[in-house]
Amino acid sequence: MGDRTIWRFHKRPTGPNLNSAFELAYEEIPALSEAEILIANQYIGMDAGTRNWLKAREDGFAPPLPLGAAMVGILIGTVEASEHPDYKPGQLVRAWGQWSNYSIVNPEEVTVHVLDQDIDDIRHYLGLLGPTGLTAYFGVTDIGRAKEGETFVVSAAAGATGSVAGQIARIIGCKTIGIAGTQEKLDWIVSDLGFDLGINYKTDNVEDQLRDACPEGIDIYFDNVAGPILDAVLANIAIHGRIALCGMMDNYNKDELVPGPYKFDMLLMRRATITGFLSRDFFPRMEESDTQIRKWMDQGLITLRFDETEGIENALTTYQRLFRGRNIGKSIIKV
Amino acid sequence: MGDRTIWRFHKRPTGPNLNSAFELAYEEIPALSEAEILIANQYIGMDAGTRNWLKAREDGFAPPLPLGAAMVGILIGTVEASEHPDYKPGQLVRAWGQWSNYSIVNPEEVTVHVLDQDIDDIRHYLGLLGPTGLTAYFGVTDIGRAKEGETFVVSAAAGATGSVAGQIARIIGCKTIGIAGTQEKLDWIVSDLGFDLGINYKTDNVEDQLRDACPEGIDIYFDNVAGPILDAVLANIAIHGRIALCGMMDNYNKDELVPGPYKFDMLLMRRATITGFLSRDFFPRMEESDTQIRKWMDQGLITLRFDETEGIENALTTYQRLFRGRNIGKSIIKV
Repeated sequence: MGDRTIWRFHKRPTGPNLNSAFELAYEEIPALSEAEILIANQYIGMDAGTRNWLKAREDGFAPPLPLGAAMVGILIGTVEASEHPDYKPGQLVRAWGQWSNYSIVNPEEVTVHVLDQDIDDIRHYLGLLGPTGLTAYFGVTDIGRAKEGETFVVSAAAGATGSVAGQIARIIGCKTIGIAGTQEKLDWIVSDLGFDLGINYKTDNVEDQLRDACPEGIDIYFDNVAGPILDAVLANIAIHGRIALCGMMDNYNKDELVPGPYKFDMLLMRRATITGFLSRDFFPRMEESDTQIRKWMDQGLITLRFDETEGIENALTTYQRLFRGRNIGKSIIKV
Repeated sequence: MGDRTIWRFHKRPTGPNLNSAFELAYEEIPALSEAEILIANQYIGMDAGTRNWLKAREDGFAPPLPLGAAMVGILIGTVEASEHPDYKPGQLVRAWGQWSNYSIVNPEEVTVHVLDQDIDDIRHYLGLLGPTGLTAYFGVTDIGRAKEGETFVVSAAAGATGSVAGQIARIIGCKTIGIAGTQEKLDWIVSDLGFDLGINYKTDNVEDQLRDACPEGIDIYFDNVAGPILDAVLANIAIHGRIALCGMMDNYNKDELVPGPYKFDMLLMRRATITGFLSRDFFPRMEESDTQIRKWMDQGLITLRFDETEGIENALTTYQRLFRGRNIGKSIIKV
């Protein structure tokens, strides 16, 4: 079947540098086993959350990635060959597959969505009409229970999920505040995405800025980072405020156990709630978010910027840029 | 109108010893102002949560108690005199009032419930048919969303709220585990209250014991203490587990800011939720909890033990016993 280029997990990393954690390998594509399909990958999404799988801990949301295994991500591609009765060559699909130009997956073990090819840009299936849209939508509506007139704050606001979550809150009618680390990002979320305010966590005192901007407290916080920003929010959380804990970027590259926020007791003082959630829990409801978001796309109310890098060989560099806050919008590899 | 004995806040405490924080004063009962009522206190409930008011922090759930003010608690007593049209001498009432033999309160500012005197033991109005029952009931049902067949854990399980919360979970049909600090307490909750298991946090490894007892994880944790026990629970929390944060006894006597649990990120890993709540948020729904709990009382399904001390002069000693875990059941002062 030819060869493939594939990223294999080589060594469990310590600290933030992942360069020696992976090796780029060149391998013959193995023959398909029963029920497997071969996908020619077109785009691979980069997700910071997968950093958790590189740790040895057994109590994470997925088992540790074994050494020698291929790194995985959500991707879209075309079925090239199939040993599964429900999948046929030529179909466009989305699945968790390997960081490679070719993925082999078993739809009995991994959800494989067949996608409608009648779309202007198939990248939407990794973005607004894919895991990013799903996570942002249910994080804001279901976990955050955002309502018109409330105050909404999101961290990593210029990232994929953050930028979409903020737009959804804005559409619902919330006062929407984004936290990010560069002026360029803040300009983008305010000028292009319609956020009411941007706060620079590198140059501003986030707690003070939030106090000024939210005199009646923060009703919903969509948290992608945890760490000190979560403390700044807790200091300003409204009574009965909701924190949708989507990611903990601030912890991912730390090897030791990171304690919870110092202002943890504000949960009691303000009768607030923190709820962790993962996109996978909402996969069964994807049609609901897709339908709503597609309407908003048609009305020109919502958008997602792609931060695209070409070439599977650049996957690791691109992945690491996520943790340094270098991307704006959805980081993807064009294979 | 005569004299009263009253506990006044003298000095903001540092550390666990509260002996010099209060002074017992003997004062003439002042004349009532418009709308005020005079209550001859009969029983005063001791609540660990009020420890927060002794701190200087401005962002607690109530403003700091001013120096010189009387210490307050929930009490029941008889109206002696009234300048309020809705309250008449001889009525039995429940209110937040002063640690004294006589309280003066203004029903326009503080909720004053008129109570039915046709009851076998008026102390129930401080217990099962009062704030304790209310807090336990809504913490288990509304915040914890406990369902039949789930696994329920409660800390400070031999305290007032904990012992009632565990019984409610047992009635609902949960596997019920209580954590407490003496064998006497554990014997009581298992033998007398019908808990399935008791864990001694002073002699057992709580995390290991919970892992053995809850192989499928903890669905609901009713938390009265925070601290290391919360970490032991988080290590064993079920997917979509709920933590009802009712109190943080472990923090109350600490002057510095106490960070959140080390295993905070288990909220994300297990998609779990922590919600802080206070009884006052459920005051408007008290009839709902009273009605249900009264049924259970009539059926002999639920009970509350009183840990009663006589004499207002013993209030401070009794209050401090709460923080040392010396009480079993509801700690009250018989005035």
